[in-house]
Amino acid sequence: MKSTFYREIHLRSRPVGLPVLDNFELLEFPLPAPVDGEVLVRNLYMSVDPYMRGRMREGKSYAAAYEIGRVLYGGAVGQVVESRSEALAEGDLVYSNKGWREYFTAPAGKLTQIFPDVAPLQSFLGVLGMPGLTAYVGFLDLGQPKEGQTVFVSAAAGAVGSLVCQIAKIKGCRVVGSAGSAEKVAWLVEEAGIDAALNYKETADLNDELRRLCPEGIDIYFENVGGEHLEVALKRMNNFGRVVVCGMIAHYNASEPVAGPSNLSLVISKRLSITGFIISDHHDRLANFYTDLGRWMSDGQIKWRETIVEGLENAPQALIGLFSGDNIGKMVVQIGATLSLKPPS
Amino acid sequence: MKSTFYREIHLRSRPVGLPVLDNFELLEFPLPAPVDGEVLVRNLYMSVDPYMRGRMREGKSYAAAYEIGRVLYGGAVGQVVESRSEALAEGDLVYSNKGWREYFTAPAGKLTQIFPDVAPLQSFLGVLGMPGLTAYVGFLDLGQPKEGQTVFVSAAAGAVGSLVCQIAKIKGCRVVGSAGSAEKVAWLVEEAGIDAALNYKETADLNDELRRLCPEGIDIYFENVGGEHLEVALKRMNNFGRVVVCGMIAHYNASEPVAGPSNLSLVISKRLSITGFIISDHHDRLANFYTDLGRWMSDGQIKWRETIVEGLENAPQALIGLFSGDNIGKMVVQIGATLSLKPPS
Repeated sequence: MKSTFYREIHLRSRPVGLPVLDNFELLEFPLPAPVDGEVLVRNLYMSVDPYMRGRMREGKSYAAAYEIGRVLYGGAVGQVVESRSEALAEGDLVYSNKGWREYFTAPAGKLTQIFPDVAPLQSFLGVLGMPGLTAYVGFLDLGQPKEGQTVFVSAAAGAVGSLVCQIAKIKGCRVVGSAGSAEKVAWLVEEAGIDAALNYKETADLNDELRRLCPEGIDIYFENVGGEHLEVALKRMNNFGRVVVCGMIAHYNASEPVAGPSNLSLVISKRLSITGFIISDHHDRLANFYTDLGRWMSDGQIKWRETIVEGLENAPQALIGLFSGDNIGKMVVQIGATLSLKPPS
Repeated sequence: MKSTFYREIHLRSRPVGLPVLDNFELLEFPLPAPVDGEVLVRNLYMSVDPYMRGRMREGKSYAAAYEIGRVLYGGAVGQVVESRSEALAEGDLVYSNKGWREYFTAPAGKLTQIFPDVAPLQSFLGVLGMPGLTAYVGFLDLGQPKEGQTVFVSAAAGAVGSLVCQIAKIKGCRVVGSAGSAEKVAWLVEEAGIDAALNYKETADLNDELRRLCPEGIDIYFENVGGEHLEVALKRMNNFGRVVVCGMIAHYNASEPVAGPSNLSLVISKRLSITGFIISDHHDRLANFYTDLGRWMSDGQIKWRETIVEGLENAPQALIGLFSGDNIGKMVVQIGATLSLKPPS
């Protein structure tokens, strides 16, 4: 069952602008053996996320930069294939930050065991994982929605955006989303059940379109994109509105500085707040997140999509594809099939 | 004592870019007579404030635009010269929003009587008035300072900035200010007692200078200016820092859109908040403001400067001068001398 060698992906060089395949390197290494207290884990799914682009950049960010010549990392779910710890048994499923590789060893205590009763395994990288918590905390804690308010979400069909949209609907808001294809727009309106969606790639004048779709203005803008979306949203915000800045994907690959919105002084006349956040500061909200999301999912109030790419060797292209919107919902890379799940107890 | 005619200043035309004298018109009218319940007030001092530039623009802002061919208005202190109300007697001093004119009539109940025991009359337009409350609420409520934090203030020698600086010192912060002349810098450090000040007009590299003056980064940036100041402040902010946006004077006279900061995505990685406010939303804080400020002033903890321009006819130039930093502290226009103050009771 176990191979003798396994593969992992290293950062070969730092990208300038959009990453290219040549920035990555697929390498083979002998399979490590767990020592006492450790387990050997075979990864099943790994996550690719927009934030990873930031870590490919040199220098200080909120997290250490990926190092050249070293393995990349990120969220992954895997299965224990060999255990030298009583904490985890062969077959157990775990969440780790050790993506971008087929196998790894780690102290059992450093891993989070997961139990995929409510949703498929890979959803622990999406709706039940970091992107889900990001949507939950960003929208509810920072957005402070009130029933009847209008919420505008950019990258609305993405892993985070699609959940923000649906939590906003559950909270009684009117929800308008922006996405980059007709398919995404249709999914948002017909499946996710939001009030209106626009395909920004086919919209001649984003301001006119938003004025039409949000006739009572915008109270909360959930920002995943930056650039023109932010400028137009500021223009259409209501007094005392809140801009929750989760991401600015339009800026991540810029090799030149991207000018900020030219109407930023609207924050004064409209008394706006613009607040950025990083989800790793908010792990204290995990229990509430699982409670609420579990209920909403079992009530059928949450729909989600995943875009699954097969094979570790395709992970670099999956990451690159995020920046052209190749994904609907969470983009994950399937690395291996589950060996055998323990029968439900 | 009373004239038969009085003068007031009208908006003749809307400025493009920096206002010019020709945008204003000084006109003479017969003195109005108060009807029952009204008083006739002779203005003594009127305020010129940067926000007035916004009202000279056509279209919706947070307040109605000044109308062409109509009298301008703004904060003023004056003295009752004729009363047909029991609420106010001849000689009483009042605060009103009826600046830009020598005389006016108004229902006595619409005016706020003031008692200049603690500070000169004109300070009700500055440190004890709207600019003072702006500094108090903006810095304390929105800035949420903690002892030992570093505060950076732009337009630090202005009416609002100079008070922010001193409240920040009272709260145990390290305070660095930016101003536009050597005289202002000297006043800030030597009189207002802040930790360091820079003359941005003589600073080759604002980022280098701020790095030097704020070696532990910036926790609160009190924004009065916009433009390069905001971009550099974002660069030097600490994680979880707060940008309180009181004004963006560098943008007010722009006839073309001013590009926003190119590093706005730092709000994510540094978890920053950027919050705008307008003081008229915060009049519920007046009692606290007067209590605290009264104590600080009687303890000698607050220094202030005023720039007094003589004569209503010079009010347009005084307003224009705000945008080239002609003022240290509050810029006021003296319209007339106090007739006779009642002896202190």
